Amino acid sequence: MTTFAASSIPPIPTIARIRAEIASGDAGVEQYVARAYDAACESQASLHAFCYLPEAAPINAADATAPLAGVPVAVKDVLDTADMPTEFNSPAYKGRRPERDAWVVARLRAAGASIIGKTVTTEFAWRQPGATVNPWNGAFTPGGSSSGSAAAVAAGIVPLALGTQTQGSVIRPAAYCGIVGFKPTYGAIARTGVLPLAWSLDHVGIFATRVADVAYTLALVAGADAADPHVSCVPHSAATARGTRTRRIGVLSRQAGGEIEPAQQAALDRLAAQLARDGAEIVPVDLPAEIFETPAYALKLMSVEAAVAHGELVDRTPELVSPAMRGLVNDGRKLPATAYASIKAAQMPMARRFHDWLTRTMALDALLVAPATGEPPRGLDYTGDASFCAPWTFLGVPAVTVPAGFGPAGLPLGAQLVGAAHGDLDLLMLAEWVEARTGWQTAVAQRRA
Amino acid sequence: MTTFAASSIPPIPTIARIRAEIASGDAGVEQYVARAYDAACESQASLHAFCYLPEAAPINAADATAPLAGVPVAVKDVLDTADMPTEFNSPAYKGRRPERDAWVVARLRAAGASIIGKTVTTEFAWRQPGATVNPWNGAFTPGGSSSGSAAAVAAGIVPLALGTQTQGSVIRPAAYCGIVGFKPTYGAIARTGVLPLAWSLDHVGIFATRVADVAYTLALVAGADAADPHVSCVPHSAATARGTRTRRIGVLSRQAGGEIEPAQQAALDRLAAQLARDGAEIVPVDLPAEIFETPAYALKLMSVEAAVAHGELVDRTPELVSPAMRGLVNDGRKLPATAYASIKAAQMPMARRFHDWLTRTMALDALLVAPATGEPPRGLDYTGDASFCAPWTFLGVPAVTVPAGFGPAGLPLGAQLVGAAHGDLDLLMLAEWVEARTGWQTAVAQRRA
Repeated sequence: MTTFAASSIPPIPTIARIRAEIASGDAGVEQYVARAYDAACESQASLHAFCYLPEAAPINAADATAPLAGVPVAVKDVLDTADMPTEFNSPAYKGRRPERDAWVVARLRAAGASIIGKTVTTEFAWRQPGATVNPWNGAFTPGGSSSGSAAAVAAGIVPLALGTQTQGSVIRPAAYCGIVGFKPTYGAIARTGVLPLAWSLDHVGIFATRVADVAYTLALVAGADAADPHVSCVPHSAATARGTRTRRIGVLSRQAGGEIEPAQQAALDRLAAQLARDGAEIVPVDLPAEIFETPAYALKLMSVEAAVAHGELVDRTPELVSPAMRGLVNDGRKLPATAYASIKAAQMPMARRFHDWLTRTMALDALLVAPATGEPPRGLDYTGDASFCAPWTFLGVPAVTVPAGFGPAGLPLGAQLVGAAHGDLDLLMLAEWVEARTGWQTAVAQRRA
Repeated sequence: MTTFAASSIPPIPTIARIRAEIASGDAGVEQYVARAYDAACESQASLHAFCYLPEAAPINAADATAPLAGVPVAVKDVLDTADMPTEFNSPAYKGRRPERDAWVVARLRAAGASIIGKTVTTEFAWRQPGATVNPWNGAFTPGGSSSGSAAAVAAGIVPLALGTQTQGSVIRPAAYCGIVGFKPTYGAIARTGVLPLAWSLDHVGIFATRVADVAYTLALVAGADAADPHVSCVPHSAATARGTRTRRIGVLSRQAGGEIEPAQQAALDRLAAQLARDGAEIVPVDLPAEIFETPAYALKLMSVEAAVAHGELVDRTPELVSPAMRGLVNDGRKLPATAYASIKAAQMPMARRFHDWLTRTMALDALLVAPATGEPPRGLDYTGDASFCAPWTFLGVPAVTVPAGFGPAGLPLGAQLVGAAHGDLDLLMLAEWVEARTGWQTAVAQRRA
């Protein structure tokens, strides 16, 4: 569906639909790539989702039977692309041209995908916003840091986009833009060629309009790479579903990030009631107390690792780095090693305890939680609160948000499902079932009417 | 072979021999366990290898066909034992009784082994020495931190002992005591129930008189455990040999730890010449420059992680902690988080570069290097320099030392072989071939004559 009229071109169909049209001969492999490229160009005047678009539609010459042949994809500008600049929305990296594609970009291209352009990120995927606006209302933030990727999918330009999440940078913009956002298990998609913000927390994520497209893409790009040094082993089952039978879903008395807006709570309650009517077992649960400490832990890890990754640049050319980023680096430099090492040492045991709590103590398939406080904040200066996503990023567990309704300002609300580590496809199968019960299509139709 | 007469009891045979005698009916499962226990008790007056021996020989009632049935084992007192105290040679932990066995101790018991006692460690496996002396000459250090385990095997009391290595705490005492010491690939033996000194560097290691016994034991105890939180994946091939065909061995112009004694150099040269005569390809190589920085990196990681693990105790009861340990904790507390995080971030990429250098650039099966400066230092106050082991501990690659001769003071010299990560059994197969060519048995016979 379209949001506001970012371009005169009708919204692009899902990957499943594009593939079906190509398979039946109703569409050629160039068709949707060219159309996405045109829509992207036209949208720039209002949406500002892209920071780079090539001179012409860059059509991947892959065989039409390749799994993503004919599928246009937008890539966040923190993922290296050999044929386009990769600048992290930082003036310090103006004109930077990577020598090779990021691992996941190469996987997408090998699967036949056409990368049509690079999308706006906040500076270094941290707080300083870019120019992208929310496709539903240009006076509101699209969220960050994967602002452009979320907006480009929500505006119907591309059916698929890549982003990254170190705190809440995939789930939050997806929720704010009314699309599906997915952050896999830590390490499930290799990060080679992706700008590090904080290697203990960085994840590659996927945006699409439908969960099925996310699952289809994940199966193509899940994998480890030896040059991604911070994940030491192959994610053994990210792309293997074990099969969820019970649909036993936990709902929270208190969200990990704290207070949420009444409309967000109402959307979660409405959805949980619908899921219960359709056979899910909805279980009220209290998160283990230590989960509430994870956003602060994540922020400390991030400040230290960002200081390691970007401190030298801050020292060399402070004038080319935003105050927000300088502040992050300075915060990291103030921490003693023991504080960082304590949190690092606690991270994996906490993940194991959460795993046991989720899968054994509570015997849940997933948690249904808020992806954000509610609707996106008004204005473009602040991309929103990541505390509702940070725990799942810190624990490295898969999370997906689906659009679940509209708030009082007419902006989207999401519903986040959080699953067990390495149960990525199980979570997505459950999310696909949930997605069919959100009433989102009806809400969009009513909003248009 | 015996060293000095720590007891009147003849030295115990190898595991292979014990197993053969039991299989043929020449020995019962109690026989060698009782004998080892008696020898351990008798040796205490002079050797001081044990910090705890039970009231009577603790014979494992396992079936005689169990792989380690009838085999007496000594365990360093940093590994938890449910039936014996585990005190880390710290007055602060006097009387500590763990609820359960360390994972590797449980594996040994499940394989039929009888744990006859706990061996002396330096305090917390760091520098403050225990009472153990070198079995070849009581005026010399046995090395540390696994002092008692190395001495108990060298004195012929047990054919097998467990130790730990965070810098050089298995390889160094093994070399000083004239036995085989083995440190596997990082994570190849789970550390659940082992006192952490520095989780990024801690390894469980194995002492025996022959390489074959080490390989036999490794196959029984290699494995990951979910409760060992700092290794995130199963060590996929630690117990699987790929088969070494070429015996291409690198020798160093400059050792990782710096200068070594002339006798140590001569022992390495003599051994390399013998290996060349017997068909090995001996390749002079220069270590990559960054390897020389690893001992300093390892020390920094260790100081920070030791401060996390033991800082609270130091604050609470400083009088119960040695100045050496307090100094380590204080050093760790002075480091900024960015310094620690930088080293942690560099550790795995350095390990990958070393792997590529060793296995591709140089196409080596192993490096033949010094395990220490040479003979053990005189006196019991200083357990020796770990810099010749620290690089391989930091990189997490397997290392084994075999006895290779005697120095001018009549104390043993070792020869350390360093292999590729996860190539543990390949390294041990090569080490077994090397062991047969050291002239050690002849040197021992000459020394006795």
